[in-house]
Formats: sequence, structure tokens, C-alpha cells
Amino acid sequence: MSEQIVIVGFGPVAARLVDELLPAVRSGMVGLTVVGEEAEAAYNRVLVADLGVGRTTAEALALSDAAELTAQGADIRLGVRVKRVDRARQQVLLSDGGAVRYDRLVFATGSRPVIPNLTGINPDPTHPVLPAGVTALRDLRDAEALRRAVTGGKRVVVLGGGVLGLETALAAAEEGATVTVVHNGPHPLGRNIDRGGGSVLAASLRRCGVRMAGNARSTGVEHNAPDGGFSALLLDDGSAIDGDLLVLSCGVRPRTELAEGCGLSTSAGILVDHKLRAHHEPHIFAIGDCAEVRCPDPDCAPCRNANGPSGLVGPGWRQAEWLAGYLTLLADGGEDAALLPALPAEQPGVIVLKARGMNMAVAGDNSAEPWDEDALAAGAVNGRPRLQVSQWADPEHGRYVKMTTRGGVLEALVAVGMPRTAAELVGLFERGAELPADRSLLLRLDGPDQLPGTGAADPAGTVCRCAGVSGAAIQGVVEEGCSTVAEVSKATRAGTGCGGCHEDIKGLIEKHFRAVQAA
Amino acid sequence: MSEQIVIVGFGPVAARLVDELLPAVRSGMVGLTVVGEEAEAAYNRVLVADLGVGRTTAEALALSDAAELTAQGADIRLGVRVKRVDRARQQVLLSDGGAVRYDRLVFATGSRPVIPNLTGINPDPTHPVLPAGVTALRDLRDAEALRRAVTGGKRVVVLGGGVLGLETALAAAEEGATVTVVHNGPHPLGRNIDRGGGSVLAASLRRCGVRMAGNARSTGVEHNAPDGGFSALLLDDGSAIDGDLLVLSCGVRPRTELAEGCGLSTSAGILVDHKLRAHHEPHIFAIGDCAEVRCPDPDCAPCRNANGPSGLVGPGWRQAEWLAGYLTLLADGGEDAALLPALPAEQPGVIVLKARGMNMAVAGDNSAEPWDEDALAAGAVNGRPRLQVSQWADPEHGRYVKMTTRGGVLEALVAVGMPRTAAELVGLFERGAELPADRSLLLRLDGPDQLPGTGAADPAGTVCRCAGVSGAAIQGVVEEGCSTVAEVSKATRAGTGCGGCHEDIKGLIEKHFRAVQAA
Repeated sequence: MSEQIVIVGFGPVAARLVDELLPAVRSGMVGLTVVGEEAEAAYNRVLVADLGVGRTTAEALALSDAAELTAQGADIRLGVRVKRVDRARQQVLLSDGGAVRYDRLVFATGSRPVIPNLTGINPDPTHPVLPAGVTALRDLRDAEALRRAVTGGKRVVVLGGGVLGLETALAAAEEGATVTVVHNGPHPLGRNIDRGGGSVLAASLRRCGVRMAGNARSTGVEHNAPDGGFSALLLDDGSAIDGDLLVLSCGVRPRTELAEGCGLSTSAGILVDHKLRAHHEPHIFAIGDCAEVRCPDPDCAPCRNANGPSGLVGPGWRQAEWLAGYLTLLADGGEDAALLPALPAEQPGVIVLKARGMNMAVAGDNSAEPWDEDALAAGAVNGRPRLQVSQWADPEHGRYVKMTTRGGVLEALVAVGMPRTAAELVGLFERGAELPADRSLLLRLDGPDQLPGTGAADPAGTVCRCAGVSGAAIQGVVEEGCSTVAEVSKATRAGTGCGGCHEDIKGLIEKHFRAVQAA
Repeated sequence: MSEQIVIVGFGPVAARLVDELLPAVRSGMVGLTVVGEEAEAAYNRVLVADLGVGRTTAEALALSDAAELTAQGADIRLGVRVKRVDRARQQVLLSDGGAVRYDRLVFATGSRPVIPNLTGINPDPTHPVLPAGVTALRDLRDAEALRRAVTGGKRVVVLGGGVLGLETALAAAEEGATVTVVHNGPHPLGRNIDRGGGSVLAASLRRCGVRMAGNARSTGVEHNAPDGGFSALLLDDGSAIDGDLLVLSCGVRPRTELAEGCGLSTSAGILVDHKLRAHHEPHIFAIGDCAEVRCPDPDCAPCRNANGPSGLVGPGWRQAEWLAGYLTLLADGGEDAALLPALPAEQPGVIVLKARGMNMAVAGDNSAEPWDEDALAAGAVNGRPRLQVSQWADPEHGRYVKMTTRGGVLEALVAVGMPRTAAELVGLFERGAELPADRSLLLRLDGPDQLPGTGAADPAGTVCRCAGVSGAAIQGVVEEGCSTVAEVSKATRAGTGCGGCHEDIKGLIEKHFRAVQAA
């Protein structure tokens, strides 16, 4: 008899798990049910803003084809919610009255947007009903609201200075909307970037036509639009920022209420061990944004310093891939995952922001400053080299670089307005490679005498960080005939995540065809 | 009948005036008396610290030869003080009981060291009698005290973080003394440098073996040495810095008491107009450290923003040269200085610090930071471009550069640990030339791939800023046979001021002989 697997949620991470389980489904080893509450099969949520500004299509966002999955033997339930998990009977109860039995249950419920506590917005976090003219830009319907504002040249207010808010703002401004970003603190990107980089970033955003309202504390929204919808965001200093659409971009929170309801342990997310198993429950797993890897062993050092879910799609995909292997092993009668390589630890995230006339990369903890006393003092501390910081600041030309090193190896980086330096630093960061002693050599990559196409040319380097695809792998499929980003994405999964590498993939395609024409 | 000129003071500026007046003395047009209170004729006071650490000789410091001047007809009175100026009778009364009549009187009394108000040090500013083991390093006898401490490998405490204090500390540490610099504020060089540059400078000084005690407020000195002399500098936090010699390097103050005593107007210095004439007194002039150029016209814009005496020898030398021409014209019966070109306005000073393994240049107001809101905002203010700041900080390798520009032209600069970048920036600053748009190009001059001898190669550039001598002029006399710094100094006056250009002069000599040998 085949092992019955139920996946709750049908976002990008669930889609990847489904893909990886399909061979076992086709062979009859596994029976698979996927429950998704949206009417659509999995699509790329990260690009909803791009859809909203008209840069991509709903078709291009699709990550799964429900009909095809059904044809291959999977049981796909769309537009249905799981109401409750009955662990005693090992079944899930559905909003349509149905019930599905499971041997293994996987939570892939993802996260929901944080709805800030503003007067005039329903603050119930589990069932936010946003008023007209306010959107959290999470699903395909939200994209449509942004689309109307942008094509109408309307005023868009983005609340939140995170990378998704900034990308939405840049894209909307470029496509014709009047955009204001409202954020706490002196600069956008909060703790991810340092003060200098944040200032240069804010100035660069202004040059791209985005108004930046920093150090702003919003208290409520005003609904004076003709249709009774959003008309202004109110600040605690008594001022108001007028607009036609408010985009909430205040981060996300793991969706854990279903897991909590059936008695599983949660912290920020659903607590799972290194095999992605819920604590003390061998039949239930969690992956992606809803999962928090923190094993019950109090002596496990990585878990003591764990940070909760990353909010990025790449780590979720790597979990899905690993879990598919583990579930297949279990379905095959194996009980021990020792045959599987351990789930690799995630590298610290790199945040990349790309737009026309704008480039930024940050990674690690950038709070150290070059003239911190600690950095200036000589010698090691407890045998460990000290943190050292070098910095290039040229805000007049929108350029800023900070390299935080220990023993010559990057622990953190900021690069604004210097795309090649950024690409090189990200590569050095991910490889853990030592920087040249004269750090200023790195600035030359963006110098006026640099030939186009000579920067960041290491083919072994990662191009798509979400799906973990190298430049060499992309070159391979381009040589085999892929000539568009969509074709490369289909062949390698590169570019199906945050989309930040689309320009790089285009560059590799163009480079190939230039070489072919020249030959 | 010849015109009688009396010069009060016989320092480097007076020496230059004497030199320039000699032709008129020899021709009998001018009768010249010089009154100097020291036993020696003029010598280079700036290099007293170098003499103290044994790097130069008293002979090399000499700027005038009393016997030779006497032979040419000048009346040189050494070891004598002017007690009083009798303006009604146009005569000066001397400490030896004599009196000298004048048609024109020139104050060149210079400045005296500021003696800080410390318990255990006589605070009378006009007659400081410093206790044993305490020196202000001003004259040849002070140099001898430092010499004994350095050759004995003793502990030297330098109070004051100005450029002279730092140079003394670096030289003494290099020659074997244990040196501590004690200064106010978070970093040395006070307001001349910014916080970042100051931090990197302090760290570089530490690497050169100089102990730096910043943010220190000294309250008194302790005299517990076996000879009853200095044993420790006491700080207001109750701590003490032990040492065998205390070098006071707390700046200088113009010597104006003689001018005040005869009723002349003074502010920081003796007030003179653009012809260097004391206010409302056509027979009296003042030049150098004791003079403050600020004309009585309240509408004169340059004088409204005048800063008082610079404390540098170069401006005094240029005043001496100009005044010699004016006095000669007056002696010749001319009354109108319209025939003379106006005394050129002084450029803002460049402060250069050079030592083995250490290089620093600063100029202008470096207080603006790259991420100041004002600099980040776009557009001009009242038709004037905004201040813009670019900055490179790599304290791990002792490197720091800050370029403060307006409309692409330097208004201020800091360069630490990057000698070629420093030389290039100083040249750009003095020429008022526009910087390349990519400011990071300037950092390449100190890159590892730069060929030796290719930096700062502009022969029109100033090598000796004190005497205003270009590289081309020095090359000229080297080609004519000068083969040592002393010979070049004798021929061009280059290197007779602060001595900061001695290495550059050596470099030009070596370059010439390399080229000759290669030919």
C-alpha cells in the first residue's frame, strides 16, 4: 500500500516539493494530496509587484500546472482551506467538509503580511480585511490594485523600507506613478544596511524619482477618497501623506495557527528539527516560511543561534528538495535518514536590489564602522582576528562600499551604485575568499576605464541565489538552445525566485549570441 | 641722507627682510639696524625639534651670518632687547642702555609658545620660567634638553596634538625615546582633521611607536626627579603620565607687548593694513607671526574674514619680500605703493606630516561628512554648488582620504598613509583644478601596481610650500650642479622652512643622477 502524503499550502516551496515527489507518485510508492486556499496553483509571489507594474504576466509567474500534476496522479485541491488537523486520527479536515487521511503531513503554509496597527485598518492578524485602496501586495488580486494605480499615474504610498517595498516603489515610479516610501528610522533597509550606505541609498532612490519619508511614525489611514477608500497616511507629528493607494510592506509573519491548533510547538515559526520534523511528532513536517529549524537538543550550537525563518524563497526550496528525498526514503520503508546527506546549513543571506539606474547589495552585519576603537587597535582577541572595516563613500555620484572583514575575509558588505564591485564582493563573500590587501583595487571594477562585460566573470559563481544556479549551468543551457530568460528558467529554475538575476541571465544569453555572431 | 630702518627681532622672517634690503644698504640708500634678543643670528626655528633628536646641526639651521651682514654695512645687535619704542622721537630704547633712531620701524617679533596653565609651571605669559625637565622647544637651548632625553633613551611626554608636537614625538620615538603625546579631544590635530582621519592618524602614530593619550585634560606637573625636575604630567581624572622630559607644544601667540606698549592697535597680532603699515602710523610696519593683516576699512571683505597670523613661515617670507620692495621705494622718495604689485593673498595653508612609515596631508575645513543631508540633497544653493564629500577609509592598512569639493574643485582634503594621493590632492587643491568624476581614480596612485616615481610628477607643482619653490626650479639648479639638499636650499631657499620637502628634494636630485647615469 502506498504512503499517503498531504501538503498544506501551495506556494512556491510546496510546488517544489510536489515536483520532487512526482517520480514516487508516478511509481505508486506515494499518494499525494495538495491543499491550496487560492484558486490558482503555485505562482511566484515575489514577483507580484512586477506583475502590478505591468512588467510580467500572471502566466509567467505560474510555477505549477494543476491539470498536469493531476494527470500525473497527484490530488490537487484548490480554493479549499484546511480547517483543522486531527493528529489522533491522522487526517486533515477541509473547509469544503471533506477530510483527507495522511501518513505524513507537511506544513508549507508560508507567511502572511504583517498588518501594522493603524487606526482605520482592521488589526486582527489572522483575518485582515483591508479597506479599499490599501493592499499588502501578496496575491494576484493585490497586483491588480497596484496595476490600476500605476497605469492611472496615481499617487502610491509604500509603508515600509524593506527590500520588497523599495523594489515596488522603484518599479511603480519608473512606470509612471508618484511614489512615496514611508519608513521608520533615518534610512531605508533598517538594520540590514549601515548609516552611510542607507543615506546614499536613500539619495539614489530620490534620484530615481521615489520620494523618501524617513523617521516617520504612521498612526492611521484616512478614507476620504470618492469611493470611501484610502486618501492619506497619517503620521504621529500631525502631518499626512496623501495618496490613492497604500501598499503595506511591513514584513511577513509565519502562518502557524493551524499547527498551534493541533498542539505542535511553535516559536516564530513551527519548530522542526534538522530532519524538518515537528518536535515530538514523527508524522508531521514543516518547510519554507512557516518553519523554524531549531532542534530540541539544548546543546546544539547552530540551533542556539538560529534566527527563525529567513523569509527568502531559496532556503525553502532547498528544504523542499531535501524533504522530498527523506519522504521518499520513508515511503520506501527506510526509517533512518543517515543514508541522506544532512540538510546543508544556510549561508547568511545576500540582499540585492536592482532597478534601472540603481544597484545595491548588502549582506551580514554592517554595524561596525572603520574608526571603531576596536578595529583600530592591533592584534587578535582570544586568538581571533579583529573585525576590520574599509569604506568608500562618494554620495555625489551615488556610490558607497563598505567591506567588513575578519582576517581578510568578508563578514559583511554594502555596495550601492557600484554593480561590478557589488557582484565581486558578493562572490568573495559566498566563497569566503580573502580580499586583496589593497581594498581599493575592488573599486576599480566600476572605474571609467573598465571594459563592459569584464566584471564578475567567474562562471563558477552563483547567478541565481534563490535556486542556487551557477553561471556555468546557465551558459550550458544557452549553448543547448535556450535564448530567453523564460526558457533558461524552465530548463534550470534560475530566475524563478526573486527575479534579481534576470538581467544577469539576459547578459549571459547576449554574450553567447555575440560570440556566435563573431565566430 | 639715507633712510634709517630698524627691525625689531631677528628670526627667519626678519632675516629674509634683511637679505632683500641688502642691495639698498650696500648702495647707501638705506641704513639698517637689526635688534635680536638671542645671541645667535636668525636660524630656522621650525627645525629645532630635528636638532633636538640629532637629525641636523645648529650650523645647518643658520639662516643669516651676522659677520657677513655687518661687512655689507648692516648694524646687527645680538643679545639685546628693545625695552620701549618712543614714537614721538622715532627711536627705540635698548636693554643695554642704547637708543636707535628710525625713519621706518619694522616689528618682526614673531610669536612665543603658549604655556598652559598647569600647577607647577609659572603661568606668567610674558616671562615664563619653565622648571627643570620642561621645555617649549623654541630655541637652540631647548633643543639641547630634548637631545639629552633622546640619546639617553628617556621618557618624553609631549603635551599638545598639533603638527609640531606630532613631528617631535615621531622623531624622538624613532631616535629611541619612549614618547607619549597627550592631547585634548578624541584625536590629534584638533580641528584641522576630521574624526575619521584623526582616528586613522592616531592609530598610525601608535604603529610608529608613539603612545597617544587622547581626551586628556592635564592639570599640573609633578617634580619628583632626583634633580627636582619634571617627573610626571598630572591629569584631571587623577592619573599621571610619568616621564623625564615634558615638551610643551600648545601653539604660539604673537609677541605684541612692545607694540601695545607704544600705543599701536592690536588684536591677535599687531594690526596692519594691506601695505603692512600699523594702523594710523606711517612709520611703523609689522610682518610675520606678530602681524595681523586687517585693514581699518570696515567694507574690505577679505579683512572681515581674516583669521589672524597663520603661524607658518611661508606667508611671513612673502610679506618680508614685498615689504623690502615697498621700503626701498619709500627710501627712494616714492610715497605711493601703486607702482608695486599688491601683496598676494595667502592660499589656505596645507599641513603636511612626514616621517618614516607615515604620511599625512590636510588642508581646508574637513568637518563635512559624506552623508550630511546637505551634501546628499541635489542642486545648488543660491547659485553656488553644494559641498560634496568623498571618502576612503581603510584603517586596517592605515589609509584614509577625504575630498571635500564644491563644483568638482577641492575645498578641503585629508590624506593619511597615501603619499602619492596626498601629493596629487595637494597639487589639485593649490591649482584649484577639477577632480575626475570618479574620485576613486585618485586612490590608484598608491595602488600596488603603481611604478615608483610616477606620482606627483607635475614639474610646475610647488615642492617647497614655505619658500614657494617649484619642482622645475629645483630641477634647474640640480642640473646646474647642486647635488645635496643643502646646496639646493642655498641656491633656491627650497627646504629652508619646515623641512617637509627635504625628501622630495632628495628624490629630484636622485632622479637627475639616475637619468645622467642611464644616459
